[in-house]
Amino acid sequence: MRYFVTGCAGFIGSHLTERLLAHGHEVVGYDNFSTGRESFLEAARENADFRLIRGDTLDTSTLAAAMTGSQRVFHCAANADVRFGLARPRRDLEQNTLATHNVLEAMRSTGVHRIAFTSTGSVYGDAAVIPTAEDAPCPIQTSLYGASKLAAEGLITAYCTGYGFQSHIFRLVSILGERYTHGHVFDFYGQLRTDPSRLRVLGDGHQRKSYLYVQDCIEAMLLAIEHANEHINLFNLGGDGYCEVRQSIDWICEALDITPALEFSGGDRGWSGDSPFIHLDSSRIRALGWRPSLPLRESVLRTLAYLAAHPQLLEPLT
Amino acid sequence: MRYFVTGCAGFIGSHLTERLLAHGHEVVGYDNFSTGRESFLEAARENADFRLIRGDTLDTSTLAAAMTGSQRVFHCAANADVRFGLARPRRDLEQNTLATHNVLEAMRSTGVHRIAFTSTGSVYGDAAVIPTAEDAPCPIQTSLYGASKLAAEGLITAYCTGYGFQSHIFRLVSILGERYTHGHVFDFYGQLRTDPSRLRVLGDGHQRKSYLYVQDCIEAMLLAIEHANEHINLFNLGGDGYCEVRQSIDWICEALDITPALEFSGGDRGWSGDSPFIHLDSSRIRALGWRPSLPLRESVLRTLAYLAAHPQLLEPLT
Repeated sequence: MRYFVTGCAGFIGSHLTERLLAHGHEVVGYDNFSTGRESFLEAARENADFRLIRGDTLDTSTLAAAMTGSQRVFHCAANADVRFGLARPRRDLEQNTLATHNVLEAMRSTGVHRIAFTSTGSVYGDAAVIPTAEDAPCPIQTSLYGASKLAAEGLITAYCTGYGFQSHIFRLVSILGERYTHGHVFDFYGQLRTDPSRLRVLGDGHQRKSYLYVQDCIEAMLLAIEHANEHINLFNLGGDGYCEVRQSIDWICEALDITPALEFSGGDRGWSGDSPFIHLDSSRIRALGWRPSLPLRESVLRTLAYLAAHPQLLEPLT
Repeated sequence: MRYFVTGCAGFIGSHLTERLLAHGHEVVGYDNFSTGRESFLEAARENADFRLIRGDTLDTSTLAAAMTGSQRVFHCAANADVRFGLARPRRDLEQNTLATHNVLEAMRSTGVHRIAFTSTGSVYGDAAVIPTAEDAPCPIQTSLYGASKLAAEGLITAYCTGYGFQSHIFRLVSILGERYTHGHVFDFYGQLRTDPSRLRVLGDGHQRKSYLYVQDCIEAMLLAIEHANEHINLFNLGGDGYCEVRQSIDWICEALDITPALEFSGGDRGWSGDSPFIHLDSSRIRALGWRPSLPLRESVLRTLAYLAAHPQLLEPLT
């Protein structure tokens, strides 16, 4: 089968691309390299079944031309930066909501009817029920990122009803692992590498977070698209349990063998729109037989090891 | 207080404008007259406290300039046509989602922090729980219209969290009454006026719908913005109970004293994305003391009487 993967040079998209190729599929990858990295595609580009097309999801004609001939879309391209939405409120709207509209329209014009989409647990805002299941009470959006992803989900499901598309939508917790390039573990490591004597932490450090190792995430998505065959298939993807930010700091410091002075900015959340407690009920995907292979702590440690081996990722993108 | 009303020449917006003026407020009305009518503003324009600005919500500079100096926004401008979303999928996105983004950005740039928004019960899709309360299970979108309005709600609530805005969001059932210009009562009357001997009905006529008289809707919104003072205030607005489409046809035919042959297109819904059963739990707004004054049947009859007196509304907009 030929897959069309948007954001193929990103954290999740690049791993997904490799795995699809390993399964014997063809992959047409689409990326604008705004946050994607050439280096993440090194393995994929050695495979004759991979074709890279440089383009933006806002460029509708390039997008549709690139998609032509594919059977299935994995829409991973996104502005994945939750924290800085308020500084540029149009970015989430364009990169997530409008981009998804454009992907759906390109599908309609090229006759592709199956889409898988990497959404986020942030759509639950400050969830009323924890662990939070897919049919949790209709949430209030607390971040522009969550709002833009929920809007994208709404578009996708409306296209499923209106145009007979099939969708697999995945609401992810924080994904960790190789090629991880943003989020608080990344920030902590970056700070400690520069100055191991102190660590500035947003919030009071008691925010409870859930992580999932990237390969476990890919595994779950591939399982779901193969075995879940409803019209609309919606899955939470989260690891076992959760930890406090303070706990992940302990793991990191232990691994680095340092004891920095911790400076908390205070408050129950890291920034406006940060949820103080994210813990998804992933029993729906588990019912298909999926289990995360890597516990939270090991996901953090593996991420650290990767960052230590790839310090260039800590430099700002030029 | 000076209110800024988008869609001031529309069905709900024009009634709202008149009522705000009657309460002694100033109103700056904003409309592009794509579906709004000059005639709906005749009363308002006789009031010195009313100022009309012709403009589109997609024209961000005109919008922000028009909003300057207002204290509160009522964002009613929308593509309100649920049924034809699939024919032009970008319209709902632009007129509802992007327009709301623009209104919010204009608010941010002009320092207005309070917004009331006319959303829709369509955001519940095919609701899992009926009557449907505001905290119903996270719904799957079945129409582009519902998806675009839910996306707008998400933007509004994210702005409330991120920028300290206050919002009042109203999820409306089908609104009836004077100046009603689309929907199935309108379609039925239009058909029967041309040919009283037959009536083509989408679906099997057993779709269950809820209506609310426009003045009751305005009453509820004004009550809510005065008495509900949370950060985010979300209200369903629906009338007492529901009726089958067949029942409203009976009321219409009885009033017109005709017995047309009914031709049903069949199926449990009128069109893709039409919900076969809409009935909102409006106990939250009722807890503030609001009650609808007009029962369903009388809402339909009053609408008929208005259409009979204003047959020009049945002509397509030029």
